[in-house]
Amino acid sequence: MAPAGLFPIGLVGCGTVGTGVVRILQSSADLLAAQAGQSLTLRHVVVRDLTRARDVDLSGCAVSDSLDALIADPSVQAVVHVVGGVEGPRQDIVRLLQSGKDVITANKALLCAHGDELFELARSLGRTIGFEAAVAGGIPIISTVCTALTANRILAIEAILNGTSNFILTRMLDRRQIYDDVLREAQQLGYAEADPAMDVDGTDAAQKLAILAKLAFGTAIPFDRIARQGIQNIDLQDLLAAADLGYRIKLLAVARLMTERLEVSVQPTLVRADRSIAMTSGAHNFIAIEGDAVGVLKLAGAGAGRLPTASAVVADLVDCVTGRAACTFQALLRLQQRNPLPLHPSADIARRQYLRFNVADRPHVLADIAHVLGRHGISISSVRQDETEDSVDGTGVARLVILTHRAAEGCLQAADNEIDCLDSLRGPRIRMPIAD
Amino acid sequence: MAPAGLFPIGLVGCGTVGTGVVRILQSSADLLAAQAGQSLTLRHVVVRDLTRARDVDLSGCAVSDSLDALIADPSVQAVVHVVGGVEGPRQDIVRLLQSGKDVITANKALLCAHGDELFELARSLGRTIGFEAAVAGGIPIISTVCTALTANRILAIEAILNGTSNFILTRMLDRRQIYDDVLREAQQLGYAEADPAMDVDGTDAAQKLAILAKLAFGTAIPFDRIARQGIQNIDLQDLLAAADLGYRIKLLAVARLMTERLEVSVQPTLVRADRSIAMTSGAHNFIAIEGDAVGVLKLAGAGAGRLPTASAVVADLVDCVTGRAACTFQALLRLQQRNPLPLHPSADIARRQYLRFNVADRPHVLADIAHVLGRHGISISSVRQDETEDSVDGTGVARLVILTHRAAEGCLQAADNEIDCLDSLRGPRIRMPIAD
Ligand SMILES: NC(=O)c1ccc[n+]([C@@H]2O[C@H](COP(=O)([O-])OP(=O)(O)OC[C@H]3O[C@@H](n4cnc5c(N)ncnc54)[C@H](OP(=O)(O)O)[C@@H]3O)[C@@H](O)[C@H]2O)c1
Ligand SMILES: NC(=O)c1ccc[n+]([C@@H]2O[C@H](COP(=O)([O-])OP(=O)(O)OC[C@H]3O[C@@H](n4cnc5c(N)ncnc54)[C@H](OP(=O)(O)O)[C@@H]3O)[C@@H](O)[C@H]2O)c1
Repeated sequence: MAPAGLFPIGLVGCGTVGTGVVRILQSSADLLAAQAGQSLTLRHVVVRDLTRARDVDLSGCAVSDSLDALIADPSVQAVVHVVGGVEGPRQDIVRLLQSGKDVITANKALLCAHGDELFELARSLGRTIGFEAAVAGGIPIISTVCTALTANRILAIEAILNGTSNFILTRMLDRRQIYDDVLREAQQLGYAEADPAMDVDGTDAAQKLAILAKLAFGTAIPFDRIARQGIQNIDLQDLLAAADLGYRIKLLAVARLMTERLEVSVQPTLVRADRSIAMTSGAHNFIAIEGDAVGVLKLAGAGAGRLPTASAVVADLVDCVTGRAACTFQALLRLQQRNPLPLHPSADIARRQYLRFNVADRPHVLADIAHVLGRHGISISSVRQDETEDSVDGTGVARLVILTHRAAEGCLQAADNEIDCLDSLRGPRIRMPIAD
Repeated sequence: MAPAGLFPIGLVGCGTVGTGVVRILQSSADLLAAQAGQSLTLRHVVVRDLTRARDVDLSGCAVSDSLDALIADPSVQAVVHVVGGVEGPRQDIVRLLQSGKDVITANKALLCAHGDELFELARSLGRTIGFEAAVAGGIPIISTVCTALTANRILAIEAILNGTSNFILTRMLDRRQIYDDVLREAQQLGYAEADPAMDVDGTDAAQKLAILAKLAFGTAIPFDRIARQGIQNIDLQDLLAAADLGYRIKLLAVARLMTERLEVSVQPTLVRADRSIAMTSGAHNFIAIEGDAVGVLKLAGAGAGRLPTASAVVADLVDCVTGRAACTFQALLRLQQRNPLPLHPSADIARRQYLRFNVADRPHVLADIAHVLGRHGISISSVRQDETEDSVDGTGVARLVILTHRAAEGCLQAADNEIDCLDSLRGPRIRMPIAD
């Protein structure tokens, strides 16, 4: 058993987040002890590759490439598990909980896929799972929803939850750069994953939104029910055209209560340039959460990165020591037992839209598109057609930007399908809602 | 004793905040029970004037104009105390703690004056004091500092903590209105107190800053050590001149670590118009808090008002039920035992400044002022002199706006004193720092 005054901990994974946790445990040891009432002492570190050099000093603890020694050590009551992937981490965390340890994870993919099952296991074993770092990194949005806003019925969440795609969108506009160049830069800066697909296609943001919405609305949202669109097809001209109209394009994650049904989506959206969410720049995250008592509360800060993410992980660790984690986790489990809300069929949601097509520059193309829209009851509020410089097959390619009045998503999708069959289309088209 | 499943509570004060608490307890009873695991049941309400009509239904509980019945009821474990003033609330809260009850207060004046003593009493009795609502109303800044940012050494707090003065400053500029008219409107809207002196002279913001800084930096800040300046002398022309230069004037509350010393001030400050703190409008509050791990975290929302403030009070109440309040309060007490930081002598702090004088429009006035500044080593970066329309004593009155390069506060104060002796000054002058 641990000597009184020491709180031994384990760490599984020692990459970006893991080394950040080690760094904070070492550099802020006194402050943490003052707050926790015990000294947080790193006893075990588990990694995949024992030969890899780490940017932190692990000399004081047992380093292993297996969980066994950690599991076998009864003095360790809490383990930080910061490894990506789903199946491996799931099995690890099950073992850790079963061996009587509280777990802290930053893995949103895991929680989105298996959160319910892991929470239930923790409950049945009298253990806790902390996951503040899994959503919006250093921004304390999980504790805000679970503890600060307990007096509120949550009405809406509108957020920027993926730093990489926000970095790309801001940088393209600020520096007039094209998508591929900025994506490469994001990878070099360590914002984007080596395979950045889940960042830019909205998967990462949707996983985080699912976790948040479950807590805020007591409603499990199957991942595939989240209307989801990425930023891959947005080009610099789209950003400039939106800016001209007084908007910024942001990858918005939205969960909103509408007449007792829940609308959930992740999609690039035009938001007025003077709103604070529009001004979220670089790799930062932003969350506006509306409660029936508090009104709109806004939080902004670093949504990822080594130390900001580790800041959230270590706060969860302190909560384990003080006993707060147990209180919070019990409340969270009770919260999840509420009556779930039905999801709002996305086909019913009506919004203004930004449509952009690259089309063969020949007669009738605009008329063809306008006819399709008209047939589906979608009315056009403005049109802008510019000749683009490159011509692909001898005929010029024109760029067509159409803003519509409010139209239902179902009608828009039906129109999309017909437009996609027009042979005058050149390259990917894009459609984005305009936030009112 | 209370039957299992019921958590009986008391309420002292049933004005703006108190009625908000009653409203939330009634309208969100199910949600609160789900989170707390017990039903929060209002058993006693104590007011001053029993004949006064209240905008809420108190039929289910004992209403009294004395604390005695509440104190005598051992089933009540937690009491919400939302009464203004200092001495009366202090005595009440001492009695409530001594009778074994946890207390929740929104009273920043009380905590600023007697927080240490009350916290120590609560500690010795094994009770807790919740005070989330005392700073920034509905924004969970106390829990952010005490629980979410435990892994961080706090480096700086920069905040708008008084909704009334922010409302006045925003409204004057937006509507080109004069101070007195907007102040009256703020009173009518219920933002300003009947006696709004403490709102506009910086007292209220300084009280809140003292509470926050104590938690964030572990350093008690005697109220009179906070450099404090109000907004009373700011006129519409100042706001317009600042806007012309690309700034907004905001009543900023700042606590900042500088070379291991703490700088603390509340004063109107010119901040660049494109910063999010500058865009905080109306009665909203804003807090940017910088930690060494998380970077800058920003929170914005309703800093006062009936339901937002009650939202924070009820969250504290749920924390009492779940046991989280006890964990947090223990951690907070430990946190306060850190080595206090010395305060930065304000005389040493060097910043750019906005100076405005109304002066007799006659020769040498500008030269006289410039000479005084020069003698104190204060160098001028720009000057603007406009003839004002009204002339007071036959001679015209000119408006002189001087921006300085960085200058130390001590030199500026010495210059202020000399300038105040110049007989060409007409009416109050103003000096405000420019945030870089
Ligand atoms: N990076 C961020 O800013 C951030 C923010 C929020 C959440 N997260 C989440 O935090 C988790 C970790 O992210 P990261 O960025 O720190 O990842 P990373 O830099 O790739 O590090 C992953 C670490 O896990 C270790 N590992 C892999 N498989 C393992 C196994 N089977 N057993 C033990 N260790 C194993 C790796 O060991 P080797 O070093 O030996 O290969 C490496 O140290 C992910 O779920 C991620 O989504 C990250
Ligand atoms: N209003 C806000 O937005 C806000 C926000 C944050 C913090 N606060 C703080 O919250 C506290 C209450 O503010 P408030 O705006 O709710 O004040 P308020 O509207 O003036 O209400 C004060 C209440 O206290 C009662 N009261 C006064 N003396 C009493 C006594 N000796 N015993 C029992 N009850 C007594 C009054 O009773 P009667 O009704 O019978 O006169 C009234 O119901 C203050 O400390 C304030 O600074 C307020």
